[in-house]
Amino acid sequence: MKKYCFGIDIGGTTVKCGLFEVEGRLVEKWEIPTRTEDGGENILPDIAKTIKEKMESANISPEEVAGVGVGVPGPVKDGKIPTAVNLHWGEKDINNELGELTGLPVYAGNDANVAALGEMWKGGAEGHKTVIVVTLGTGVGGGIIVDGRIVEGSHGAGGEIGHAHVTDEVTEPCNCGNRGCLEQTASATGIVRLAKEELNKMTETDETNLDEKSVSAKDVFDAYKEGDEVAARIVARFANYLGTALASFASVVDPEVIAIGGGVSKAGEPLIDAVTKYYREHAFPACQNTPIVLAKLGNDAGIYGAAKLAIDQI
Amino acid sequence: MKKYCFGIDIGGTTVKCGLFEVEGRLVEKWEIPTRTEDGGENILPDIAKTIKEKMESANISPEEVAGVGVGVPGPVKDGKIPTAVNLHWGEKDINNELGELTGLPVYAGNDANVAALGEMWKGGAEGHKTVIVVTLGTGVGGGIIVDGRIVEGSHGAGGEIGHAHVTDEVTEPCNCGNRGCLEQTASATGIVRLAKEELNKMTETDETNLDEKSVSAKDVFDAYKEGDEVAARIVARFANYLGTALASFASVVDPEVIAIGGGVSKAGEPLIDAVTKYYREHAFPACQNTPIVLAKLGNDAGIYGAAKLAIDQI
Repeated sequence: MKKYCFGIDIGGTTVKCGLFEVEGRLVEKWEIPTRTEDGGENILPDIAKTIKEKMESANISPEEVAGVGVGVPGPVKDGKIPTAVNLHWGEKDINNELGELTGLPVYAGNDANVAALGEMWKGGAEGHKTVIVVTLGTGVGGGIIVDGRIVEGSHGAGGEIGHAHVTDEVTEPCNCGNRGCLEQTASATGIVRLAKEELNKMTETDETNLDEKSVSAKDVFDAYKEGDEVAARIVARFANYLGTALASFASVVDPEVIAIGGGVSKAGEPLIDAVTKYYREHAFPACQNTPIVLAKLGNDAGIYGAAKLAIDQI
Repeated sequence: MKKYCFGIDIGGTTVKCGLFEVEGRLVEKWEIPTRTEDGGENILPDIAKTIKEKMESANISPEEVAGVGVGVPGPVKDGKIPTAVNLHWGEKDINNELGELTGLPVYAGNDANVAALGEMWKGGAEGHKTVIVVTLGTGVGGGIIVDGRIVEGSHGAGGEIGHAHVTDEVTEPCNCGNRGCLEQTASATGIVRLAKEELNKMTETDETNLDEKSVSAKDVFDAYKEGDEVAARIVARFANYLGTALASFASVVDPEVIAIGGGVSKAGEPLIDAVTKYYREHAFPACQNTPIVLAKLGNDAGIYGAAKLAIDQI
């Protein structure tokens, strides 16, 4: 009788771990450090060890465990990864290696995709089956769920929507090497870039509380909420880039809901309203009323989604 | 023993019909007129009649038929359609109505999506499971296949990629009501628009054989192949819009292959090469070498895909 599963989210500094009941209750969560030294060779053994310890202390037998879901920062395809730079990994067959170490079935996926699955299961997109999740942090990540399943893609690059090309106006290269990616206009860093451009374009009659030298994405949204005109221009540009890109993605998969997460989304409903305005302007008519909502699970989205990945295999 | 199936592609003037063996061989194809008068009330009965006649003449029993797949010009969701303007239909439950008329299982899908499934099964994308198909005709249609299944979308609008927003420079409305859709820059009509713009911008030193008054998409590609400079500018703009949009869609689903069909694609490899150039420039690195190929089935893609839809339910 499968009663439990583990959801594991491997990050560059910590591994987030969750013990779940298969119905979806998070029983307990904890973290262990990610030991990236020696080519990250300790990471999977450390995870196996903490899982075994938890099973022992909670008196859970292997027969009761449906499996271990794992979110990994890199392009996972069929449980394997060609490389995970942040973990210092080269090619690795996560499902097999961690499966042998734990004696449990293991199901790995890309961390952003897995987090999207978490938001679909228990977060902002709960109750839906076809979902776009976009995560606005230092970069822009994403995950696409169609009929309840992650779109992994043929190179593990499904949901890499942060690297859709949205403008010919950016001359600096993106982290991916291209120029003009959504990430360069809608991440925290991208918003700072837009802010500096707008602050540089200010005329004498413009007034703002933003300081070009220290401006952050949070400053922009805080000022926007207080009615700052220049902040409004910055938010409009950000929202136009993001809303238009989301409309384009919606023409591909026609989701039931679009959820926005990540640090930048802490700006809350004013951000959602601004993005929705531009989304509606550019979306195919049938998709124009698709709700855009805030993600809910924050840093726990990864462990929830990883757990769901294991549960879906029962 | 299920040995046969029918693939039906309902268009505004004719209904294309195919009798297939479930292994994929097209046994016979034929057409009947689409009688759109009286709210299109004869269309499904006409289809039922031609199927029954074919079964009788070919001596096929209902037990031998896996089902009837149907492609419909409109947003099909779970076998139902809210409206199909070209057929003069309002709301219609195609699976149930045609199922009752034929006594066979019926599976309806959007015509562009079904055609994409056909190209995946027996056309330009044969052998693949995750595929983007874009059809460049009077408009721009599309179909997205993920892991062998059509992405139908929550409003039946999955694969409506012709209405992704690609430019702020178009002021006329698209057929969908928006402005700046891919369809307005990459359909036969869109290419004529670009051609007229470029021909209007010509300087005295420019030479071209294109005639602004009569220019067609075919003229543009013919002149391009002969080295016409102005045609090269037009093709570059078209290819930039389409290639960049395809790169954006690839960041969503990361397909194994992208197939381009429709009348405009008769321009052949020079078109593919031009689009591929801009695709590669803007695609996420992992997807940059994804092949862009010509669709192969032409007007038969619909009956093939419809047949496949029925076969997949066995």
